[in-house]
Amino acid sequence: MKRPVVLLLLLLGFTEVAIAQKARWIWYPGDFDIWLSNKVQNRRTEKGSFYPVFWKMDSHYVLVEFHKVVELKEPKQIAIHAEGTYNVKLDGNLIPGTPEKVWVPAGKHKINIKVFSQATVPSVWIAGKTICSDASWRVTIEDKEWIDETGKASDVSATTYHYAATGEFADPMQPPSAYKLPVVRKSAVATTSGLTDFGKETFGYIKLHGLRGKGKLTIYYGESKEEALSTAGAETLDQLTVDLPVKKDSVMPLSKAFRFVNIVKEGNVVLDSVSMLYEYADLPDKGSFSCSDPELNKIYDVAKYTLHLCSREFFIDGIKRDRWIWSGDAYQSDLMNYYLMNDNTTVTRTLYALRGKDPVTSHINTIMDYTFYWFMGIYDYYLYTGDEQFMRQNYERMKSLISWVLERRNKDGLLEWRPGDWIFIDWAAGLSKEGAISFEQLLFARSLETMSLCAKLVNDKDGAVYYGELATTLRKKLFDYYWSSQKNALVHSRINGQPTETVTRYANMFAIFFDYFDAAQKQAVKKSVLLNDDVQKITTPYMRFYELEALCAMGEQAYVLKEMKDYWGGMLQLGATSFWEEYKPGLTGADHYAMYGRPFGKSLCHAWGASPIYLLGKYYLGVKPLTAGYKTYLVQPELGGLQWMKGAVPTPDGNILVDVSTKQIKVHAPAGTGTLRIKSKTMPAGNDIEVISAGDNNYEITIKPARDYVINYTAL
Amino acid sequence: MKRPVVLLLLLLGFTEVAIAQKARWIWYPGDFDIWLSNKVQNRRTEKGSFYPVFWKMDSHYVLVEFHKVVELKEPKQIAIHAEGTYNVKLDGNLIPGTPEKVWVPAGKHKINIKVFSQATVPSVWIAGKTICSDASWRVTIEDKEWIDETGKASDVSATTYHYAATGEFADPMQPPSAYKLPVVRKSAVATTSGLTDFGKETFGYIKLHGLRGKGKLTIYYGESKEEALSTAGAETLDQLTVDLPVKKDSVMPLSKAFRFVNIVKEGNVVLDSVSMLYEYADLPDKGSFSCSDPELNKIYDVAKYTLHLCSREFFIDGIKRDRWIWSGDAYQSDLMNYYLMNDNTTVTRTLYALRGKDPVTSHINTIMDYTFYWFMGIYDYYLYTGDEQFMRQNYERMKSLISWVLERRNKDGLLEWRPGDWIFIDWAAGLSKEGAISFEQLLFARSLETMSLCAKLVNDKDGAVYYGELATTLRKKLFDYYWSSQKNALVHSRINGQPTETVTRYANMFAIFFDYFDAAQKQAVKKSVLLNDDVQKITTPYMRFYELEALCAMGEQAYVLKEMKDYWGGMLQLGATSFWEEYKPGLTGADHYAMYGRPFGKSLCHAWGASPIYLLGKYYLGVKPLTAGYKTYLVQPELGGLQWMKGAVPTPDGNILVDVSTKQIKVHAPAGTGTLRIKSKTMPAGNDIEVISAGDNNYEITIKPARDYVINYTAL
Repeated sequence: MKRPVVLLLLLLGFTEVAIAQKARWIWYPGDFDIWLSNKVQNRRTEKGSFYPVFWKMDSHYVLVEFHKVVELKEPKQIAIHAEGTYNVKLDGNLIPGTPEKVWVPAGKHKINIKVFSQATVPSVWIAGKTICSDASWRVTIEDKEWIDETGKASDVSATTYHYAATGEFADPMQPPSAYKLPVVRKSAVATTSGLTDFGKETFGYIKLHGLRGKGKLTIYYGESKEEALSTAGAETLDQLTVDLPVKKDSVMPLSKAFRFVNIVKEGNVVLDSVSMLYEYADLPDKGSFSCSDPELNKIYDVAKYTLHLCSREFFIDGIKRDRWIWSGDAYQSDLMNYYLMNDNTTVTRTLYALRGKDPVTSHINTIMDYTFYWFMGIYDYYLYTGDEQFMRQNYERMKSLISWVLERRNKDGLLEWRPGDWIFIDWAAGLSKEGAISFEQLLFARSLETMSLCAKLVNDKDGAVYYGELATTLRKKLFDYYWSSQKNALVHSRINGQPTETVTRYANMFAIFFDYFDAAQKQAVKKSVLLNDDVQKITTPYMRFYELEALCAMGEQAYVLKEMKDYWGGMLQLGATSFWEEYKPGLTGADHYAMYGRPFGKSLCHAWGASPIYLLGKYYLGVKPLTAGYKTYLVQPELGGLQWMKGAVPTPDGNILVDVSTKQIKVHAPAGTGTLRIKSKTMPAGNDIEVISAGDNNYEITIKPARDYVINYTAL
Repeated sequence: MKRPVVLLLLLLGFTEVAIAQKARWIWYPGDFDIWLSNKVQNRRTEKGSFYPVFWKMDSHYVLVEFHKVVELKEPKQIAIHAEGTYNVKLDGNLIPGTPEKVWVPAGKHKINIKVFSQATVPSVWIAGKTICSDASWRVTIEDKEWIDETGKASDVSATTYHYAATGEFADPMQPPSAYKLPVVRKSAVATTSGLTDFGKETFGYIKLHGLRGKGKLTIYYGESKEEALSTAGAETLDQLTVDLPVKKDSVMPLSKAFRFVNIVKEGNVVLDSVSMLYEYADLPDKGSFSCSDPELNKIYDVAKYTLHLCSREFFIDGIKRDRWIWSGDAYQSDLMNYYLMNDNTTVTRTLYALRGKDPVTSHINTIMDYTFYWFMGIYDYYLYTGDEQFMRQNYERMKSLISWVLERRNKDGLLEWRPGDWIFIDWAAGLSKEGAISFEQLLFARSLETMSLCAKLVNDKDGAVYYGELATTLRKKLFDYYWSSQKNALVHSRINGQPTETVTRYANMFAIFFDYFDAAQKQAVKKSVLLNDDVQKITTPYMRFYELEALCAMGEQAYVLKEMKDYWGGMLQLGATSFWEEYKPGLTGADHYAMYGRPFGKSLCHAWGASPIYLLGKYYLGVKPLTAGYKTYLVQPELGGLQWMKGAVPTPDGNILVDVSTKQIKVHAPAGTGTLRIKSKTMPAGNDIEVISAGDNNYEITIKPARDYVINYTAL
């Protein structure tokens, strides 16, 4: 992806290098993302068979027009590359042929480039001394140029023209469709009678060295040794028909997840050795965490590795089985990402891919809750990054999706299962999906709040009021319909207009960190639900994420620390080298690997297993944005029983560094205005700080950019 | 396209040949049509530059599931070919790998095949002794299989599953994407100093024989000699850079329209000769017409040739310039097609391509009137073919398009220009497009009537009532708002709630053959509009089509015959070998070729120039369906001054043959029940017929299938 742009330099001459390097491939917003997701999601196989998604896949627009009005002091030449068949207009006049270089005269001029590409995403790369393709170009799928010529339809532009999307693709010889994750060769750590061990969970292309002979060869992939050795049970495999008189190396066509591979040969096939090409997204870590507890450090490291394995072209669920983009899973990866790689592109690419295109015919991934996580993911993305441009690009897609949802309300204004809907919530035995489930209404309300916020951002005043009122009404109904003062909890559902008796954790824990409960309700729910063993326990790291978040939000960091050590530490004690899709401490041996009725159905490397990254960054280091893009933020460290901890939390302007012991807190922030909130037995002290006492041993100190704060205090 | 299916025969053995030949490639309805239209419409060039459409282009669904429940007495093997990556399930169980042959056991079984293809249309070809891919297979873009497994979402099927689309593609080695029009070599008739004449308007790939040397070669295409010789004015050209030390033949990459090509060489480029590969759609003529007037026969022949040149993968406007699918143009080709080739595939393919996919963001081709011609085209297609399946496949697309239109009504319930709309009507100087134009409301009313009819067909009773009431209300408004009893006409428009004073022909002539006028209004309008030279004249064959149709519908065949001879005969006298986009008798010389401000902008082979085919079949031979698919029909011959005429009109069941002199009428029909309506001075007589006198020299005779009627009468 980073080949030097040699050809370009020859083309433009040395003096234009600096500018040319600014040029990026551009395309219609969301189109590369959707196209790439089709490619990526259709790589799933099950026992060698193609295994695609079961919802509508959308596609890119095949005909796209890009344009920009430029103003030049002197004539300039631009170089043009396009993916697809294209034409170029200067001031509305078609330039003959398919020009690769165009002289733009001095003065104000309009450049239009129109591209058709059926198989790949129409995109262009334009570079000159002052004109470059970038996100300032406009783009449309219906220029209606003949109508525009009459001068009558100029106000069409407002609704159909967008700003172009762009990314990191700078090489004119490498259009977006050439995008591929990098690979690096890795050796196995051991091979015994056909079984090769790569030492830990990994992902890539198996390479067979010195393959020769005639017959068949089957590679059984295993996340566990048991899986690789189970020729009937292994979830993924590759089968080769071999007919090689002389030795040849062979790389498998699809990358796969494994720690072990078991190679079974038939006929006189022989093989020298096995290695792999490790495939990865090159997303450097920005955030970090370390502390006085070695087990927690190990948990953090394995969580990091798990998240990296599942952060590929997109945030995918897990690397062995689905390898699909699931909205609920991706939502958690987004949040972890903000505390580790803080990569915006993977978040927006995942959001675009999940949303697809109009018309909406189904919930995202067919799942009602997953539609709402998508809205919530947009809210969080804005909060953590401050990227208003994405909000604007995306607002029409948000509106049409929420309109589709609103159409599906029942007579009470609530959402129930309807044909074609999947109510997921969590993998949990016997969980009722009947009627209007409180958890779904809660996420629905949050989504409406997000709509209202985004409407404000894009200056849709009517929309802001409309969605805001819908949200308020629904929040009120949540309490009117589901709150049981007898159970001190939101009940699970409402069937035929009547609340049910069941209490589950889901709605109750979300209502805590959504701040939908008042302080008294929170305390009540903590006791009646969160710490109540009579309420069905959660067995997936997926919902443990929110359960522990709710407890952290209530200051239970010490309790959560113990839970993390038990739960994630429990997996480590079983030899896990990445975190799992589900973990039930009571199981033994290979029973841990079974799920979905299949002996090795469980994914042993699942993104939602990596939540300690998020919990440690947000609720122990205690760093979170209060306004978009960390313009204002909070630092509220909680040791939770640790002796010390330190780490970095990425923001759009750089890392916020936090180093905490029981006696001293060091903070450094690159930008924005922070509030350091400390509990201390003594009045916190430090150079050039103003300490505000909030009573009850609580203190607040304002953190200004680019200063090293060293504050002495006494932990409670 | 018709290669013998040799491979298949080897695969299945001789005994299964008969069945295997029934197997057809199948795909999601409309997807091949849309995909092909993208390919075809992006072939337009202007002076060597790519020249695409200016509206949204849609695309196929990339992931499609096909399935069928079969019942077998004994196990059978099926062979499977797919375009794309695919998997096969038998009774819900994935078959390992990518099976090319599958044994289906005896009994009742469900076969599912799921295909992903980004660049081409996902499609499958399945053949066995009793199981074949055909239009009985179901298809969906969202199988939601996981939800279906719970048994809860079975009623999803009703809304998301369709019957597969199919066509003539039978060869398993030639998937739909391989579809190409056939070509045949044709020689030039003369070459003089670089200018080659092919004798008449034609279409295909220029082939250069014995090309050699180094330099450049430019081919200027001309529909006229003047155009080919105008290196600055020729609308299309090909430029080659030649570097050939030895002689080589070279075929141009894109087919083009021309009668003349002018080859200009630079450097030492030499050439032996020029020929062409004539490219055509293999649509045999079924209908025919000949008569006592040689000039009219010549007009009919040139109209046929014109229509054939413009009937390609789709019904396109003309062959030189746009080569796009324009709804208004295609609507006329459809109607002519019913009287000549009667090819259903080209009609439905064109209708699918025009409609594209949801969401609707614009009128069809951006033109308001063209949206309505699309609805009217569906009505006619049903009437002429009786193809109910297409109505069902298409009804959802009709609903979403009409909903989009209904949203755009003004407070009076009328449609006015809104940003992004093009009100076309016709090429006519100074035609006002302001306010609510009567012509558009008329087409809108007709479209609503079509919606109501289709709603009935697909058993949408509420829809039938809803659209029917909308149509009735709008028809009433047409008269309330636009009828001027002073002018005896519908006025052109209504601006700010007030009718304008202008009268144009458009709404008035359509209201005649729509039967919206009563008999008195028709007579009044004939005088006040149609035969009134003070009302702006029509200069395009496009609107002459309807003007002459209106006159024919009122029995003015003699007048129309003279008009045809003047107008189309006028073009022939100027040497036309195909009929033009526009014809203004007053012009001279090469001025005839100018249009759109360009010296050779006019298309000299335009489908809408071929309307005599339709007029002669429908209003002279007088054959037209009264109910869908010619179940009942009318034969009402009108000689219009001719001594004799005879011809064939195609129906789904074969040709209706009509042979008429002033004394005798012969009729033969293959199916259905016809009504022969004759004006005669004497009582018509013949063997075994029953003549009903309708008074005033009008007689009716019932025509039964497969009988030769010979009826003696005396023309008035």
